[in-house]
Amino acid sequence: MKLLYPTSLILDVARLEGFSVELQPYDVKAPEIPAEHHDADILITWTNSPDNLKYARANLPNLRWIQSLAAGPNDVLSAGFDTSRVVVTTGSGLHDRTVAEHALGLLLNAARRFYEMRDFQLQGKWPGHLGGPQPDRPKDRFTTLRDARVLVWGFGNIAKCLAPSLTLLGAEVRGVARSPGVRDGIQVYAEDSLPKLLPHTDALVMILPGSESTKNVLNAERLRLLPKHAWVVNVGRGTSIDEDALVDALEAGEIGGAALDVFQTEPLPEGSRLWKAPNVIVSPHAAGGRPQDAEDLIQYNLRRFLANQPLKNII
Amino acid sequence: MKLLYPTSLILDVARLEGFSVELQPYDVKAPEIPAEHHDADILITWTNSPDNLKYARANLPNLRWIQSLAAGPNDVLSAGFDTSRVVVTTGSGLHDRTVAEHALGLLLNAARRFYEMRDFQLQGKWPGHLGGPQPDRPKDRFTTLRDARVLVWGFGNIAKCLAPSLTLLGAEVRGVARSPGVRDGIQVYAEDSLPKLLPHTDALVMILPGSESTKNVLNAERLRLLPKHAWVVNVGRGTSIDEDALVDALEAGEIGGAALDVFQTEPLPEGSRLWKAPNVIVSPHAAGGRPQDAEDLIQYNLRRFLANQPLKNII
Repeated sequence: MKLLYPTSLILDVARLEGFSVELQPYDVKAPEIPAEHHDADILITWTNSPDNLKYARANLPNLRWIQSLAAGPNDVLSAGFDTSRVVVTTGSGLHDRTVAEHALGLLLNAARRFYEMRDFQLQGKWPGHLGGPQPDRPKDRFTTLRDARVLVWGFGNIAKCLAPSLTLLGAEVRGVARSPGVRDGIQVYAEDSLPKLLPHTDALVMILPGSESTKNVLNAERLRLLPKHAWVVNVGRGTSIDEDALVDALEAGEIGGAALDVFQTEPLPEGSRLWKAPNVIVSPHAAGGRPQDAEDLIQYNLRRFLANQPLKNII
Repeated sequence: MKLLYPTSLILDVARLEGFSVELQPYDVKAPEIPAEHHDADILITWTNSPDNLKYARANLPNLRWIQSLAAGPNDVLSAGFDTSRVVVTTGSGLHDRTVAEHALGLLLNAARRFYEMRDFQLQGKWPGHLGGPQPDRPKDRFTTLRDARVLVWGFGNIAKCLAPSLTLLGAEVRGVARSPGVRDGIQVYAEDSLPKLLPHTDALVMILPGSESTKNVLNAERLRLLPKHAWVVNVGRGTSIDEDALVDALEAGEIGGAALDVFQTEPLPEGSRLWKAPNVIVSPHAAGGRPQDAEDLIQYNLRRFLANQPLKNII
């Protein structure tokens, strides 16, 4: 049996040895995969070029399993693999810590107004209004995570990783997800509770996957339900926010600000109104992109694959 | 017995009642304190003007205790109170959470390079090099708190408040203080260990008080011991860093960057080299300035004062 692993990230291949599986590296950006590897059974993907994936689909007849290291392997699905014959598993879980940390950073950037301090710094001006004695936790501003009501929409593994940091800083964390319940001690509500939850939210953190059902779910109507000081943070997918409605809300002062790591179109187009809208933080899809402990997931799924057991993270 | 409390912050005065002490508000910025309050025994201070404090020193003959809400009440000491007659207690502890949160924000701003993203945003440019697939935890850069070696110099209550957040994000936290030992599970070293510790530090967080003994303690020699990618964060006092040596190190690329909330002179003077030095984050003394739970401290010390027991936070 042969497994092809990508050279587009550093993998500790030694940790994948001992399985009676031949491990071979391959170049994910090359338009072709060398003929001697057309007999591969397993393909690990990470930042492959579309051509490379299409070539793999057409030329690797023995392929039975693709382990993507991306949380949402749209690239693999777009290449047209026959998923009735090839099992595709995602890298869900490999990005929890990096995305959670970046989201926490965006929240603190918003609360402590580091972006506004930067604007002053570039002009050589001291932003005195942001320092010195200040009111503590004013009701009409988002200045700290202490006692802040943080609503996490899309309460999966990333949210579970983020919540303890927020709680430790004193935030009241609630979640929204398709199925309600208590997860890791956090109360998670169904989406039909949003009209009740949004008016009592100081920061809305969106961690929704990209799909038809999440398209533009943060729309004008829901934005209007947020308090005027509330911030929106998005580290999920840009398609989940109606960007025109968001800019309208920002320009009208209907919400406090938006810290966005993802956008409808990436890179954010030159003509986007988001560049210059007030209190917007533009982060260039930097939260993820750094799979961690990929060896653990590959090893785990490899054991199950060889034992004919159902794999983890099947699409 | 009479206690004067400041109107320069919102205090829940009801929580100070029931002590057989008359509670009276006063204006901390007024040059005089009304004659009917010259019989005050206790003065709570917060952002008082120098004139107000000098007036209090000269005109409140019964004064026996001043409770400052500042962590370092230099203003009270400068007013020349006779501390053999008037006990001065600090607001140490009231600023732990705000300063710790701001320090965490500065660390994440540095690691995730939000300041650099902002520079691109202001030009309407997408900072592609900071997003997309990236190496995870490269040895020669500070990109995440996970596995980052964070050294906290000045390991008091603020550090104890900050450490759990750092640990939760995966950092290896160590401390430096005058007296070594293990505090809240963190190994704290004596200052003579700095030459051994600094070369193994990804982020140095300084939380030192302002005093003669901490003046310019982060000097050229110690800066040279830090790795080239290491960041310096200062939320203590600006006097603890030799700013010229810091700018030299930044300009020469000898350290990774500096996120500073405090400076030798505040506001940072127009001519300071720090404004334009590479990878500097200028924050306008914004970490503290928001005493929290002051009522608890006042109440606690009031009980002890009335019972003739030693007060907490005596200078």
